[in-house]
Amino acid sequence: MNIYMNDLLQQMGADAKAASRLLAIASAADKNRALDCMAAALLSQQDVILAANRLDMENAEKAGIKPSLLDRLSLSSSRIEAMADGVRQVAALGDPIGEIPQGSLRPNGLRIQKTRVPLGVVGIIYEARPNVTSDAAALCLKAGNAVILRGGKEALNSNIAIAVALRQGLTSAGLPDDSVQLIEDSSRETAAQMMRLREYIDVLIPRGGAGLIRAVVENSTIPVIQTGVGNCHIYIDKDADAQMAVSIAVNAKASRPSVCNAAETLLIHKSAAPTMLPLISSGLKEAGVDLRGCSTTMAILNDADIKPASDADWETEYLDYIMAVRVVDSIDQAVEHITRYGSGHSECIVTDSHSATEQFTSRVDAAAVYVNASTRFTDGGEFGMGAEIGISTQKLHARGPMGLRELTTFKYVVYGNGQIR
Amino acid sequence: MNIYMNDLLQQMGADAKAASRLLAIASAADKNRALDCMAAALLSQQDVILAANRLDMENAEKAGIKPSLLDRLSLSSSRIEAMADGVRQVAALGDPIGEIPQGSLRPNGLRIQKTRVPLGVVGIIYEARPNVTSDAAALCLKAGNAVILRGGKEALNSNIAIAVALRQGLTSAGLPDDSVQLIEDSSRETAAQMMRLREYIDVLIPRGGAGLIRAVVENSTIPVIQTGVGNCHIYIDKDADAQMAVSIAVNAKASRPSVCNAAETLLIHKSAAPTMLPLISSGLKEAGVDLRGCSTTMAILNDADIKPASDADWETEYLDYIMAVRVVDSIDQAVEHITRYGSGHSECIVTDSHSATEQFTSRVDAAAVYVNASTRFTDGGEFGMGAEIGISTQKLHARGPMGLRELTTFKYVVYGNGQIR
Repeated sequence: MNIYMNDLLQQMGADAKAASRLLAIASAADKNRALDCMAAALLSQQDVILAANRLDMENAEKAGIKPSLLDRLSLSSSRIEAMADGVRQVAALGDPIGEIPQGSLRPNGLRIQKTRVPLGVVGIIYEARPNVTSDAAALCLKAGNAVILRGGKEALNSNIAIAVALRQGLTSAGLPDDSVQLIEDSSRETAAQMMRLREYIDVLIPRGGAGLIRAVVENSTIPVIQTGVGNCHIYIDKDADAQMAVSIAVNAKASRPSVCNAAETLLIHKSAAPTMLPLISSGLKEAGVDLRGCSTTMAILNDADIKPASDADWETEYLDYIMAVRVVDSIDQAVEHITRYGSGHSECIVTDSHSATEQFTSRVDAAAVYVNASTRFTDGGEFGMGAEIGISTQKLHARGPMGLRELTTFKYVVYGNGQIR
Repeated sequence: MNIYMNDLLQQMGADAKAASRLLAIASAADKNRALDCMAAALLSQQDVILAANRLDMENAEKAGIKPSLLDRLSLSSSRIEAMADGVRQVAALGDPIGEIPQGSLRPNGLRIQKTRVPLGVVGIIYEARPNVTSDAAALCLKAGNAVILRGGKEALNSNIAIAVALRQGLTSAGLPDDSVQLIEDSSRETAAQMMRLREYIDVLIPRGGAGLIRAVVENSTIPVIQTGVGNCHIYIDKDADAQMAVSIAVNAKASRPSVCNAAETLLIHKSAAPTMLPLISSGLKEAGVDLRGCSTTMAILNDADIKPASDADWETEYLDYIMAVRVVDSIDQAVEHITRYGSGHSECIVTDSHSATEQFTSRVDAAAVYVNASTRFTDGGEFGMGAEIGISTQKLHARGPMGLRELTTFKYVVYGNGQIR
């Protein structure tokens, strides 16, 4: 174990905790001013950030990193402007702190007010997208939390430059710069040490691929909010409108296949399959999607381009222009398939039957269950939250898109006049 | 590793998951009928339960277990009646499942309904109180959850007999008996294996002492709700009413010292101390409380019975007739003391000053912050929740008393008419 690094992490944790106490009592006006200063600092320090990013890009190219990752890593003037805009948009959101979502007057005269307060210190572990640094910092700050960021090693120089700018923004607005701290070490060992800073970090949110999330869940003693893995299904019921079925299936799969709310498997009722499957299949092919079909699908479509689906296909989050297709005997079989293979993210039924709707929505256990709408809507912005820090696929604390409110907790404030028990 | 036990646990997990799917769509009427049958079965199988409990008591006495623990372990006719009453009281509570705490119509016509649903499978790890077996099972069932119980080895025979009765009650009401399962093995190894059944158990709630809770937090890969440790403070401000100060301090410390919402340390403002500390001290002594004082306290009280307080005293949850006392220079120093030593459970200020109230309630970070009322009110029943499964001292998901709603999550049900993105 790297003792020096561990001491440093402990110090960062203590500093974050101290900053969080000031943030917890900062007004919305104070926090918004800080966010504006942070956005301004990103713009004024653009050259430094771009120079750091060029270094990261050169290293990544030398290391032979694949083009899709290079694209995520790369910054430009317009991307930095977009980051600054994102920070300003968070400033424009309402402040959830101080809300009293519930209150009561007890028979003994105690007045109980359930009051929304910040979580305290949030830890974010993420991969190679430097814009996460400013997005996450802005959302955490607006919700009154200090944040400790640990990004991927590919983006380290970019992240350092971005964090320096954000911290200068905080200082110039009179809020503690330790509200935003970046761990300037991308070793796994340091990440593992961070996951055990339970004394200081109140919640850990991993953002990234399935491997990263699994590692955090396995190793963290800090409460974790698991995000992101989406093995989503579109189920076309026997009473579906054919045109709607095609449009939703194509949109859910092909509008942006790389994101977690994209669909991976199409399930279709056996009475709908003979007429609708050819229409959906040609829509998907037109959108560039390769299909993997069950034996009934293969028989109906009779298309040499379609490969047979194996069990592995039902389990796979392709995140690509590939869709598995299975013909099912009944809505029950569709629900069973989703129960077995789904990741609890977003599931959709296309139907005009009221009873099928009731069955599907009550029996499918997922963060978002759709009736006649694309799974692609599972998103903080689309849900009216303004911005999101991720999509939770666990059941504790937050489920589905996480906006500002999901970055808070509450305390009970109880007023009495001498009550004893 | 005990492979056989691990297979058995996996099977229990799968059975619980299957049962939870039926519970999720069971009506309140179904669940209430099951609870009534469970209560009836506890009474009708009283003799078997008492015989099993006698066996546990004999073993515990032979093992030389201390009297307070023996008392917790011991069952009697009237205690079993109280358990059955507890189960019926849960049946009488409103069912939170299906509540729609929030909903919106989005500009694109999507109707989003945030709908309360069960968590799924709850794991409870507890110690030697057999009544927890029926309490926890009843609350989990009413909230639509299956439960896997793992009690302390001292109560194993009692727990087995109670679980058999509860499962017979479920069966006779037509709900799956695997809604309630008990792990009939009290080894640490088995507990450790249970803590890694992430595939099947949605949340783990440890109920018991600090050691048990620490072990669960350290070892579980399942999300944990941490409960129970309460290092609670009463702060007597300079503007406190003297009589109220005495009454709240004595009640918070001495009405039931063994519970987590009892106070452990008294903080008192230096201007109030000379007049009020002698009154409070004599009230506490009358109630049988031993004091440990800071140097100023010792000087003011000048009482040979009072021992000097060390740093360890500020950190200790005595759970006994002992209270630490510190004179502070200011409300700031009181808040700092609480920030440093408090466990985030329940904290109280006694004052008639509005500004002191504002400062204390905004700056003290705890599940419940009291103004002029005893910390002893932090309790599901007192908060109007009807019953509780524990008091959460963490910030994620639930904070403070956890009733039925805290044993639920929600899903977003989204209705459209063909929306795509």
